[in-house]
Amino acid sequence: MAVRNVNTTLPNFTGQHVNPDLAIERQNPSFNVERLTNILDGGVENTQTRRRVDAWLQSDPEFSRENQYFQTQNETYAAAVRQSFHLAKKRNEMKWAEDGPEMACCYRALGPVLALNSHPIFLKCILDLGTDEQIAKWVPMAEKCYIVGAYAQTELGHGTHLRGLETTATFDVATQEFILNTPTLSAMKWWPADLGRTSTHAAVFAQLYLEGKCYGIHPFLVQIRSLRDHSPAPGVIVGDIGPKMNCDNVDNGFLMLKNVRVPRENMLAKYFQVLPDGQYKKQGAEKITYLPMTVTRVHILQHEVVPNLMKACTIAIRYSAVRRQSELKPGDPEAKILDYQTQQQKLLPQLATAYAFHFVCNYLKEIFDGDYIETKEGKCGLVPELHALISGIKAIATDNSSSGVEVCRKACGGHGYSLLSGLPSLYTKMVASCTYEGENTVLLLQTARFLIKYFGIAKKGQPVPPTVAYLSSKRFGKCQAQEKNDFLNPDVYTDAYQQRAFRMLQSAAIKFQSLIHLGTAEHEAWNRCSVQLVWAAMAHSHYIVVEQFVKVLQRYEEEVAIHRILKHLCDLFALHGMLLNMGDFMQDGYLSTKQTAMVTESYLDLLPVIRRDAVPLVDAFDFSDGNLNSALGSYDGRVYERLYEWAKNHTDEVFWQVEEFI
Amino acid sequence: MAVRNVNTTLPNFTGQHVNPDLAIERQNPSFNVERLTNILDGGVENTQTRRRVDAWLQSDPEFSRENQYFQTQNETYAAAVRQSFHLAKKRNEMKWAEDGPEMACCYRALGPVLALNSHPIFLKCILDLGTDEQIAKWVPMAEKCYIVGAYAQTELGHGTHLRGLETTATFDVATQEFILNTPTLSAMKWWPADLGRTSTHAAVFAQLYLEGKCYGIHPFLVQIRSLRDHSPAPGVIVGDIGPKMNCDNVDNGFLMLKNVRVPRENMLAKYFQVLPDGQYKKQGAEKITYLPMTVTRVHILQHEVVPNLMKACTIAIRYSAVRRQSELKPGDPEAKILDYQTQQQKLLPQLATAYAFHFVCNYLKEIFDGDYIETKEGKCGLVPELHALISGIKAIATDNSSSGVEVCRKACGGHGYSLLSGLPSLYTKMVASCTYEGENTVLLLQTARFLIKYFGIAKKGQPVPPTVAYLSSKRFGKCQAQEKNDFLNPDVYTDAYQQRAFRMLQSAAIKFQSLIHLGTAEHEAWNRCSVQLVWAAMAHSHYIVVEQFVKVLQRYEEEVAIHRILKHLCDLFALHGMLLNMGDFMQDGYLSTKQTAMVTESYLDLLPVIRRDAVPLVDAFDFSDGNLNSALGSYDGRVYERLYEWAKNHTDEVFWQVEEFI
Repeated sequence: MAVRNVNTTLPNFTGQHVNPDLAIERQNPSFNVERLTNILDGGVENTQTRRRVDAWLQSDPEFSRENQYFQTQNETYAAAVRQSFHLAKKRNEMKWAEDGPEMACCYRALGPVLALNSHPIFLKCILDLGTDEQIAKWVPMAEKCYIVGAYAQTELGHGTHLRGLETTATFDVATQEFILNTPTLSAMKWWPADLGRTSTHAAVFAQLYLEGKCYGIHPFLVQIRSLRDHSPAPGVIVGDIGPKMNCDNVDNGFLMLKNVRVPRENMLAKYFQVLPDGQYKKQGAEKITYLPMTVTRVHILQHEVVPNLMKACTIAIRYSAVRRQSELKPGDPEAKILDYQTQQQKLLPQLATAYAFHFVCNYLKEIFDGDYIETKEGKCGLVPELHALISGIKAIATDNSSSGVEVCRKACGGHGYSLLSGLPSLYTKMVASCTYEGENTVLLLQTARFLIKYFGIAKKGQPVPPTVAYLSSKRFGKCQAQEKNDFLNPDVYTDAYQQRAFRMLQSAAIKFQSLIHLGTAEHEAWNRCSVQLVWAAMAHSHYIVVEQFVKVLQRYEEEVAIHRILKHLCDLFALHGMLLNMGDFMQDGYLSTKQTAMVTESYLDLLPVIRRDAVPLVDAFDFSDGNLNSALGSYDGRVYERLYEWAKNHTDEVFWQVEEFI
Repeated sequence: MAVRNVNTTLPNFTGQHVNPDLAIERQNPSFNVERLTNILDGGVENTQTRRRVDAWLQSDPEFSRENQYFQTQNETYAAAVRQSFHLAKKRNEMKWAEDGPEMACCYRALGPVLALNSHPIFLKCILDLGTDEQIAKWVPMAEKCYIVGAYAQTELGHGTHLRGLETTATFDVATQEFILNTPTLSAMKWWPADLGRTSTHAAVFAQLYLEGKCYGIHPFLVQIRSLRDHSPAPGVIVGDIGPKMNCDNVDNGFLMLKNVRVPRENMLAKYFQVLPDGQYKKQGAEKITYLPMTVTRVHILQHEVVPNLMKACTIAIRYSAVRRQSELKPGDPEAKILDYQTQQQKLLPQLATAYAFHFVCNYLKEIFDGDYIETKEGKCGLVPELHALISGIKAIATDNSSSGVEVCRKACGGHGYSLLSGLPSLYTKMVASCTYEGENTVLLLQTARFLIKYFGIAKKGQPVPPTVAYLSSKRFGKCQAQEKNDFLNPDVYTDAYQQRAFRMLQSAAIKFQSLIHLGTAEHEAWNRCSVQLVWAAMAHSHYIVVEQFVKVLQRYEEEVAIHRILKHLCDLFALHGMLLNMGDFMQDGYLSTKQTAMVTESYLDLLPVIRRDAVPLVDAFDFSDGNLNSALGSYDGRVYERLYEWAKNHTDEVFWQVEEFI
């Protein structure tokens, strides 16, 4: 920083106290904040564990995120690798399970800054698809990070459509080796994490060729770099794919293979094997491949997407209680921006959405955990339903959460555009989740395919799975609400969401059938209905989220204050969704014009009610300042002081670098 | 890059030809692409000028954007300064006017990478607010960049609400100087461009104090850095505010002033003067201050916001004609993603929106140019109407264009997340326009205030300005459409948009009035209606955009092919807006359920029609590859080759830096 002859004493907020504008917001919460935190954590013990682990993370200088927003790509990458190894060491010391509550807390706190994201998937891939011998050989080396693996599936020209992958593995009987090639430019592996500079090995997915015949995609373990000096192996071209919108911590790379040979034993062979004479052999039951994907999707929602929306709400709502702008009443001091109806209408629906998606994740995890065990025992009946359910919810949750973060960011005005607010990086990071682990439109069409199937089955009067039970229900009439408060009745709005989902699916199904009857080929009819099918899948998933939020309310009926505030949020979430999609709800006069006005009024009435508890409601998420890493969102509300301190601490350095340049 | 023992010949697209998947899209456009380019440019001559200037820019290595996505913040800043001075030199050589067509082309091509954005505003501030003596003293120095000025208005704690600014300027009669102070932390100037490291002077806006009495905000010219060694002047703390979501080229800074003295002559004194004895004196007519702001807003829309949406459409549509994924028809080769209805539904409305906003900008500029001259002659009658009109359109255009860019980006899947696609930086840059030059919600409420006023006037049967003439018109009945093709009648949808705007304004006005009648204080009633007022202002502005697009169609009725394609786009824009806001259009049964189904069908029918011309329609925007700077969007469609080349060319360097680090 450039300073001269100046007394730099700061006149504002020089004490270590909480900004009084924020302190006053915490004086009379309508509910017990600690109790709500415990509910969100799933119990008092979980809260305690989380705080203990977070306190450790925050006290360890190795995990400081102080420089996060000032780093170059290389610095971010190097810090990510360092922190990941440091965390792995701690995990081993403490014997924390990879999927235990302590690690969940670490990912909640450090998710955006860790490296080695692909390595655990590489490991799991061997465990799931390898034989006992293969597991015994590779897993110990990988677990101790003697080797680092990448999961090399996606190619430059191929993402979602796995059958289209072009990489080949041709068996050479003479040498008992597979010869791997990326025969075209578009066959090059592109995007895999940990690949660009880090990994020594890769699980390469390639088309298996035996005597000129293609047997489809199989996984091969390939050493891509020397364990001695990290130089690329013969026949390997590997490197970084270049800068991205965010995720500098993730080492996305490319990989070309030119006649790279690996021994026959390097094809993961739990289910499929190539015998020494070049024969192809299936063994055991084929794996249900999309179950692990659904696990991953729920994991991403719970540990990344929903917490990020919660963080954004925390930052924006605390800031809005501190930031003052313009006069609400002429002659008064400038008003807190949180007191403007327009600001409440931006932020409070995002807050309600964060709660709604949090609870729906719990629901997914619950049915999933039960189902998973059954599946392992071979009872796979629920898998298609689960897949359809989770695909749809993954799509709307990532979509609404990322756009919600951006609403929060913009609601912070100019300062929301500064990286120091923490908001831009939340957005640019999480918006990737709309694309990875299943592109959202593709996922919604998979949900739609399930819905169309059971729409037909329900029409025939045959039984359908529980999540689509409403497809068998009575025809829907008109909404029965008489006055605006009727829209605060969960039965009223759940029914509205149900009929909307039903109606949208029905209209897509009718169109699809009539195209078929007119002689349109099925694939063509499907494509011509696909926009409406996507809408129907969204409406269905939206209904599930509302329904599950209502079910959560029932659990807390005994706790008056908690029940009341959660019901406000549930009501707001439901009514906001109705406002945004009012046309759907008005079809066939289900809602009248008069009723739409009631929805609007009920919704607007809720805003000042929730506004009173807005700060306690984000405090209940219980993010430490270190978790948020935001100059706008810290617990003490000392926004301006922090913005200045952070900028000042770095401007010195920057200034002199530029001087040298000039 | 790490290469070893490998033949790096690339098997795909090795010729210099256009990718055949893209070439075929250009074979049979339904219209003359060059003619449409000329229309967009406003004439053949403008196209020629633009191409001449762009060819010069592309041929000058100083303007190469090759490294843009790989630079650190400092490198970006340094390059921006260098390029800006290089451009200024060229402009002086060629005698290009700052607001002439050549410079417009330069900004279209280089906008995102130039520095010195505040300096011209500093200059204009002196020209607009300075006396003849002040202009004679300061302008020549500033024009030759002997001094570089920042426009220092926004403070850490104060944005939109200028009256709230805290910086003070107290006159000292004894020394004939103003003493400038930023008395609190929140008073510090924060965000001004060119301030952090570049400028030598600043136009500082401060509360003028004379003998203890405050006279409101006035502009003062303050030297903040030495002209000898660029060190900060006595009493000045100045530095960089830190990293932002984008805009590394813009040198946003902070500035604290501690008893900084400037001579009496440094207050810009065209309209207000402080006499040597400390008396305050008004002179001349007070300036209408929001006219320059509206000029700036139109300029931003025309030269930044709309071109960025056009660029995003160009990139995403060309890529979608090249990218193949999954089978549309079983057994066929993988299909172009542009052939999926869901992809068309994402991209084509954005394309139509780009055309719609382009034409509405022309309209604004036309009425504005006419009106501006009148205003200078003192005929200010139209200014409030213009201000309301432009505020509303600025808000919806920046909002829809930035979200449209993000739709385009996501529609490119994983590769859209790579900076090399060019899409992330388009978004992260332009989304700032929702906040700067008038935060969108604030602007929409200003439009709403104008609308409410004239709604009352129209109700009394008194005359209203042309843009709100519909407020005086007949009551609206029901939509008369009988079949889906009726919705391709511009009269039908223009009427629909008009009645929607009327109805939404009416319902906000009725609510406001009834609150007042119930005894609610006006400011409180306004706040409680503000969400609905914002909606009404958006509906009004949306109507204007549709109406103006329809008027453009009338101009080209003689040119059948051009008229046809523009009408398709206009129809799509109008119907897409209806789909997104269907509930508004169904109020009081204006549209029946049957008619909403017709709207949906008409809309979906348009997608494959426009899809046939999608590539020619973006080619007509005529961006050079250098303008786009996108691996996905280049004219030749050699997407994969370019992604690899760009990554490869930089991975070498990165790789070895990391090696050194480890």
